[in-house]
Amino acid sequence: MSKQQPKLRIIPLGGAGEIGKNMTVVEMDDDAIIIDTGVMFPSNDMLGVDLIIPDFRYLTERNKKLKIHGILYTHGHEDHTGAAPYVVDALRGVPLHATPLTAALLEVKLRDAHLLNETKINIFHPGDMLQIGPFKIESFHMTHSIPDCVGFGINTPYGMIIHSGDYKFDNTPIDGKKPDYAKLGELSQRGVLLLLGDSTNAERPGWTASEQVVVRGFDDIFRQAKERIIVATFASHISRIQMIADMAAKYKRKIAIAGHSMTENVKTARKIGLLNIPDEILVELNRINHILPSQLVIVATGSQGEPSAVLSRLANGQHRSLDVMAGDTIVVSAHTIPGNEEMVSRTINHLFQRGAEVIYDPIAPVHVSGHASQEEMKLLINLTNPRFFVPIHGELRHLKAHARLAALSGVAPKNIFVIENGMVLEADKNGVRPTNERVPGGYVFVDGSGVGDIGRAVIRDREVLARDGFLMVVVNVNPDSGKVIGEPEIITRGFVYLRDADDLIESIKRTVYDIMEQSRALRNGQRREKLQESLSRLLFNETKRRPMVFSVINEN
Amino acid sequence: MSKQQPKLRIIPLGGAGEIGKNMTVVEMDDDAIIIDTGVMFPSNDMLGVDLIIPDFRYLTERNKKLKIHGILYTHGHEDHTGAAPYVVDALRGVPLHATPLTAALLEVKLRDAHLLNETKINIFHPGDMLQIGPFKIESFHMTHSIPDCVGFGINTPYGMIIHSGDYKFDNTPIDGKKPDYAKLGELSQRGVLLLLGDSTNAERPGWTASEQVVVRGFDDIFRQAKERIIVATFASHISRIQMIADMAAKYKRKIAIAGHSMTENVKTARKIGLLNIPDEILVELNRINHILPSQLVIVATGSQGEPSAVLSRLANGQHRSLDVMAGDTIVVSAHTIPGNEEMVSRTINHLFQRGAEVIYDPIAPVHVSGHASQEEMKLLINLTNPRFFVPIHGELRHLKAHARLAALSGVAPKNIFVIENGMVLEADKNGVRPTNERVPGGYVFVDGSGVGDIGRAVIRDREVLARDGFLMVVVNVNPDSGKVIGEPEIITRGFVYLRDADDLIESIKRTVYDIMEQSRALRNGQRREKLQESLSRLLFNETKRRPMVFSVINEN
Repeated sequence: MSKQQPKLRIIPLGGAGEIGKNMTVVEMDDDAIIIDTGVMFPSNDMLGVDLIIPDFRYLTERNKKLKIHGILYTHGHEDHTGAAPYVVDALRGVPLHATPLTAALLEVKLRDAHLLNETKINIFHPGDMLQIGPFKIESFHMTHSIPDCVGFGINTPYGMIIHSGDYKFDNTPIDGKKPDYAKLGELSQRGVLLLLGDSTNAERPGWTASEQVVVRGFDDIFRQAKERIIVATFASHISRIQMIADMAAKYKRKIAIAGHSMTENVKTARKIGLLNIPDEILVELNRINHILPSQLVIVATGSQGEPSAVLSRLANGQHRSLDVMAGDTIVVSAHTIPGNEEMVSRTINHLFQRGAEVIYDPIAPVHVSGHASQEEMKLLINLTNPRFFVPIHGELRHLKAHARLAALSGVAPKNIFVIENGMVLEADKNGVRPTNERVPGGYVFVDGSGVGDIGRAVIRDREVLARDGFLMVVVNVNPDSGKVIGEPEIITRGFVYLRDADDLIESIKRTVYDIMEQSRALRNGQRREKLQESLSRLLFNETKRRPMVFSVINEN
Repeated sequence: MSKQQPKLRIIPLGGAGEIGKNMTVVEMDDDAIIIDTGVMFPSNDMLGVDLIIPDFRYLTERNKKLKIHGILYTHGHEDHTGAAPYVVDALRGVPLHATPLTAALLEVKLRDAHLLNETKINIFHPGDMLQIGPFKIESFHMTHSIPDCVGFGINTPYGMIIHSGDYKFDNTPIDGKKPDYAKLGELSQRGVLLLLGDSTNAERPGWTASEQVVVRGFDDIFRQAKERIIVATFASHISRIQMIADMAAKYKRKIAIAGHSMTENVKTARKIGLLNIPDEILVELNRINHILPSQLVIVATGSQGEPSAVLSRLANGQHRSLDVMAGDTIVVSAHTIPGNEEMVSRTINHLFQRGAEVIYDPIAPVHVSGHASQEEMKLLINLTNPRFFVPIHGELRHLKAHARLAALSGVAPKNIFVIENGMVLEADKNGVRPTNERVPGGYVFVDGSGVGDIGRAVIRDREVLARDGFLMVVVNVNPDSGKVIGEPEIITRGFVYLRDADDLIESIKRTVYDIMEQSRALRNGQRREKLQESLSRLLFNETKRRPMVFSVINEN
């Protein structure tokens, strides 16, 4: 390939359900950049798993040939930054590029992982042009639920590739920083080859409401609340926290911060000047007893009902220093992430039970989405007027819905590709097309301190254990006669209460004696198998459950 | 108490999250009736539990004094009928009273449980007056997502008690049978003491759309689909099935039924004439290969993404006789029950992956709720004009929202009570009031063939096993010297792959030898404890996980 006609490849890496969200690779011949390195949160059936990170084997395996010039970040949310320590650890020396807030959040992550010295974090500002290796990239500001959010325009010999980042078109954002329509228009005029667009809300008609709607919702709450106000939201939702701080100032309340990640993020964002809370209205959580309830607002973690975060600790009466007081107004100011509905609902119910007034969407407008709805998606498509369109950042159902919108907006249906993670898109002078090439596009479990050391088989065992528990019998036999010595020991968990199951224990013991007697001629391994099979059958017949059954036969 | 001033008590029994939904007791002195006997579905954290039924101990324990005259059913949904076999079994001889469809569905349940001869099912028709023991009860027809649905007006010396049942005000129902406004008006004129109202959609503004909206949605789909149409909905949603059958007739398609509960319900409803599908358009599932794809619609179970139902089997390619074919139009025509979001979304994604066109709410209007929204709730309150109001059938958050609506509609706030299951409401000539009396109002787990034999402790063990699995070591020691004989045996599941963990195995063995050596002077039980503690510590340090740890020390 000549330098004028390099081979251009776009590869979304890593996902569990969602596509093109956590990590994307863009290659020109053997030069590459990465956009975002996010984590995913395990679904309810990934038992015991703490986190999921993209499987980026492709990069480490191709690393010798592929020159990775940098990692660019669109914004500071976990699903776009959270895997940074793992990626930096694997790709030592590859520099990061991020806007000030994103860079500050990445710095905290890398410091915690003792990796801060392993790479360089370059700061750029929304609107800056970046030259990263042979890549000339234009950043443009987009509105979302965190400040300092950008999309990228990547110059290629075949036209511009636009990556939207996470976005909505909020024309009245809290911080006054609007979407960079002018830059989008300019890029559009230069000819857009391909738009990669955020599909999160592709099933939602209309236009996502501005954060200003939430301001009015909170103004009503602050005006009416007679006692404490407690607001739970995402720790990363700096714009929301700013709005609550402004509201506190307006209504002469002090503000306290509860929860580790919230405290850390507030500190980081205040330090770089992206969160403006005057010292005199900020109060330490351990000092709130000196403040009248009517003069206090607490911003807390736990809007997803996470058991260890502040809100559910309050709901369960398990917080170290905070308690729900009758008269508290508690606001859940967040969208419920799919899979968390039960936990959030239970938390709300428990807070009501403790005497709080609980306010949440749709009871009052206390949250708006950070993602574009259908009309905004059509606007982005028409603003950029791409030849090719690839919906990213969503489940397959969202990508399909986004693809329909693109077709409605005039992109030629044959130029719209719904892709999956690990699929390789190629571009040249003839345009963009999906190839048959697949690279690993899945995910890796992080469980405890282990990364990738448990897989599907361990999860399947956990499923069986979660459903019906296990039962184990330990039998001692005379090595010469094969006869059972003494009583078999029975250990079980998650199956039944053995102390209430005398008949069952008797049946188990009888089965052990019978099988051991019948199988005296067999080898130990065969006896074990036979014993386990017979016990499984017995337990299913008696209880209609299928616990895991183990046996140990001691011949000492 | 004189006969003129009996003691009136209302007690909601049994619930997990939802209140006043599955079973309600109404007592006048020692006479009682029961309204509904429903099951609940386990939440995601009730690991391995198949079903939850109300804890109705109160009835069996008070049974000798309390004369239970009958069980009345509002409609045939599982959450109102599913516990019938358990209740009939416990309260032998108490007769059931139900409308024709509900009675037919109850009959199937009792026959399956071999209990049909243990009680009598009395059939009444919506609008009938029932005399059950000393209770004079007026039934009135309400619209919902199943035909033959009623509410009850219970005459008492202190005024009428109205139980709404599950309802919406659908003025254009599919079967033409409208809500019985006239009867509600009549009851209202006679003076309503207390309204117990369905709170499910109390957070939803406006008026729930009529089932006719779904007719238009389906008409579009049937007009446009070129190949097969597969519709997943609730097996109990007879009105929806009727509508699809009508649509099939209109568009000259044959209809096939897939899934056990769907097949059973269709048979039952057709038999009693509440579902009208002509024989000539019904086709057996094993005969559909003889029908052109463009002339076929299949109605299937699995709208909640349940792993064993038809839709997710299709999504995973695991159905015995059906496969997704490219060109299929698959309609998910149901509301997603909270807690099932992940499963439903995954099913939709997989169906897309297999090449189907998938249609679901909000992509097209293919489902409407069967429950009243806020304006309908206000209408019911104003139609019946009750002195007292108690929201039922919802989580605490829904009851709170419904209570707010009642206050807005003019019920005196001091006459509105938000209750919990097991709480006793009392009524006399002074009105209704909650008492401090509590009866068991919780639930009982059904797991396998066991009813109530597993409790919280077993579930907690399952949680630990689900998170980190278990590890067990079996050590043989010389009973005289206390020295270890041979190698310890290590069994583990759901923790790590031992085969990839040589170092860890080595550390475990070393710990076993060390501890056994140090603890030779201790008794077996103490040695075991010490060994388990040391191993737990080792495993946490090495893996940051906390599997259950067991040990067996053989001294034979």
